[in-house]
Amino acid sequence: MSLEHLDTPALLLSRPVLERNCARMAARAEALGVKLRPHLKTAKSGEVARIATHGQFGGITVSTLAEAAYFLGEGFTDMTYAVGMVPQKLAKIAALQASGARMTLLTDNPAGVPALSAAAQSMSGNPGFTLLIEIDSGGRRGGLPPVDDAVVALGRAIHDAPGLALGGVLVHAGHSYGCTTVAAIQQIAEEERAAAVAAAEALRGAGLPCPVVSVGSTPTAVHARHLTGVTEMRPGVYTLGDLMQVDLGSHGTDGLAVAVLATVIGHNRAAGRILIDAGGLALSKDLSAANRQGEVGYGLLAAPDGAGGFAPSDEGYYVAEVHQEHGLIAAPAGRDLPYDAFPLGRRVLVLPNHVCMTAAAHPGYHVLGPDQAPEAFWPRCTGW
Amino acid sequence: MSLEHLDTPALLLSRPVLERNCARMAARAEALGVKLRPHLKTAKSGEVARIATHGQFGGITVSTLAEAAYFLGEGFTDMTYAVGMVPQKLAKIAALQASGARMTLLTDNPAGVPALSAAAQSMSGNPGFTLLIEIDSGGRRGGLPPVDDAVVALGRAIHDAPGLALGGVLVHAGHSYGCTTVAAIQQIAEEERAAAVAAAEALRGAGLPCPVVSVGSTPTAVHARHLTGVTEMRPGVYTLGDLMQVDLGSHGTDGLAVAVLATVIGHNRAAGRILIDAGGLALSKDLSAANRQGEVGYGLLAAPDGAGGFAPSDEGYYVAEVHQEHGLIAAPAGRDLPYDAFPLGRRVLVLPNHVCMTAAAHPGYHVLGPDQAPEAFWPRCTGW
Repeated sequence: MSLEHLDTPALLLSRPVLERNCARMAARAEALGVKLRPHLKTAKSGEVARIATHGQFGGITVSTLAEAAYFLGEGFTDMTYAVGMVPQKLAKIAALQASGARMTLLTDNPAGVPALSAAAQSMSGNPGFTLLIEIDSGGRRGGLPPVDDAVVALGRAIHDAPGLALGGVLVHAGHSYGCTTVAAIQQIAEEERAAAVAAAEALRGAGLPCPVVSVGSTPTAVHARHLTGVTEMRPGVYTLGDLMQVDLGSHGTDGLAVAVLATVIGHNRAAGRILIDAGGLALSKDLSAANRQGEVGYGLLAAPDGAGGFAPSDEGYYVAEVHQEHGLIAAPAGRDLPYDAFPLGRRVLVLPNHVCMTAAAHPGYHVLGPDQAPEAFWPRCTGW
Repeated sequence: MSLEHLDTPALLLSRPVLERNCARMAARAEALGVKLRPHLKTAKSGEVARIATHGQFGGITVSTLAEAAYFLGEGFTDMTYAVGMVPQKLAKIAALQASGARMTLLTDNPAGVPALSAAAQSMSGNPGFTLLIEIDSGGRRGGLPPVDDAVVALGRAIHDAPGLALGGVLVHAGHSYGCTTVAAIQQIAEEERAAAVAAAEALRGAGLPCPVVSVGSTPTAVHARHLTGVTEMRPGVYTLGDLMQVDLGSHGTDGLAVAVLATVIGHNRAAGRILIDAGGLALSKDLSAANRQGEVGYGLLAAPDGAGGFAPSDEGYYVAEVHQEHGLIAAPAGRDLPYDAFPLGRRVLVLPNHVCMTAAAHPGYHVLGPDQAPEAFWPRCTGW
């Protein structure tokens, strides 16, 4: 079995790189003195989750109820569902808990507390729901400002509500993705830490419990100077790696565990393009790294790096355009495309900009061992 | 059963709008005097395919081998696989043909002909492969220039190759999506038609067969002045409709058959955003219509239009940012977001920019009848 025998487009996952990425983040968590609760929204795979939690306390983070049900089936019981909770989703949460899951939920909105409490009380035999308060350290997505009296008010409302328990606070500094220097990421990591700790201290100062102080994104997890006062971190993209994370300095190109295998399906010499069968569905239309680096497009061509991973091609060929099932490879300015080196049927590898999005349309991973031969297929959880 | 009972995010499909869209395109094909071979890469649904082919000759277009296998299982046998063929994919094509499919394939590359012929001959009991020659009328994706001697040379190579049959020519004027006026689309439609007919006449003039002269994209199908010399057209997006097609004038807002149902999961008053549980996966990161129209973002909020469809909200609220599972709704410049009108748990509808991409991550359609109540779930084909 070799890459030549796989149908394309196909999602490839280097097991040696995955294992190294996970070992590095585990060491990082140990050095920072926090628990590692990996976010599995990136990988959506039980096999990856087992590697990412190896030697850890076993908790994971999920972004959908479909992931929660899937990972419960894979044997994971301690799960933080890190998206704002609404009462309509509690019946499914309760069913997961009845099947053995211990779910930690998220809110930033006092208006939802009465409904969450009522739902918790109406469920027979339900142990209630544990909620974290989401804090916004500057990402301007979900969360309350950390120094706001509203944090204590929400904490007290949760703590006092029948059927609900206050579990702590959670911050996600997603705006770390906008940084262009390590120093800027370090600053955002410190703001993320400080916001979480300030909110936790405000709650404790008001006599409320705050056992969990949770932060995390891959860039801040990698670059934080310290995490004093934090109890856990929740990075996710580091498991698989992508061009955006290389650009952010979260890992080097040796951290790129995923590539899309595609086949050359045509040449358009008049347009200066080589066509492959990986387009907008197989690569996604995410342009994150391209918006930072120039000639990256929808992904860079890659080659085996000789160590079980994938390295960007020295020549800088990239997927300049995508249609649904067509990708169009271009050469960087000043270079010509060597059409004869890419004959019809030749296999190529494409490194994704943003692996969470690229992996989404694929049913699973063709897993490669150290010799870069396929050794397994690991399915992915899909849908919601 | 109502929309309030669906888990979110969910893909909604208005059956009345779908049926009207399909009836309109069927009438258009009849008026133009061509056969309608709808491209099912958009809908990826047997139920939609049955409506789109109702009263037609039954042929369809597909973009992946997974679609070909799926639609064969749904009873469709006459399929054009409109992506450049490579020898590695012939074994699956042969298996489909052995199971009753009549596949028409695509090439623009003489270098592939010997390998395709050898593969055809090596398969026991195989009826051979029928190939169309792809022509580029200006889209600069796949295809040979229409007036090139290479068209006749490739036609002859296919015609003379054991195991292969020359089926005709195919053009896709995808660059019609770049037009900003109907006049420009009409011009591109005429160039698409003329390129196909010129290539067909060149083949016939050389004594080669060219029974199929195939063109098509939704904008050119809607706006072509005439299709003299063309035998079939292959539009696809018209079935479901999207904001891009509204902007192109392919249909009005009454042609929008698909919306994403989402739930309000938070407010960020400091950032001026309402959060919903439909993000980059549920909406896609396609910005096509937004790149043309301004404040569209990743989709416009919508409301039931009273006729079984969806209409953009009068206030112009739109999904300004997406994260994987979060969408952030903004108000157009000069307007405020009415947070109280979007309480936690409220359901909202989002109209997609590019429905082919938006539908991709969803397992299927929640189908709504004329009263906008869910009446069925139609699964979608996924993967490759």
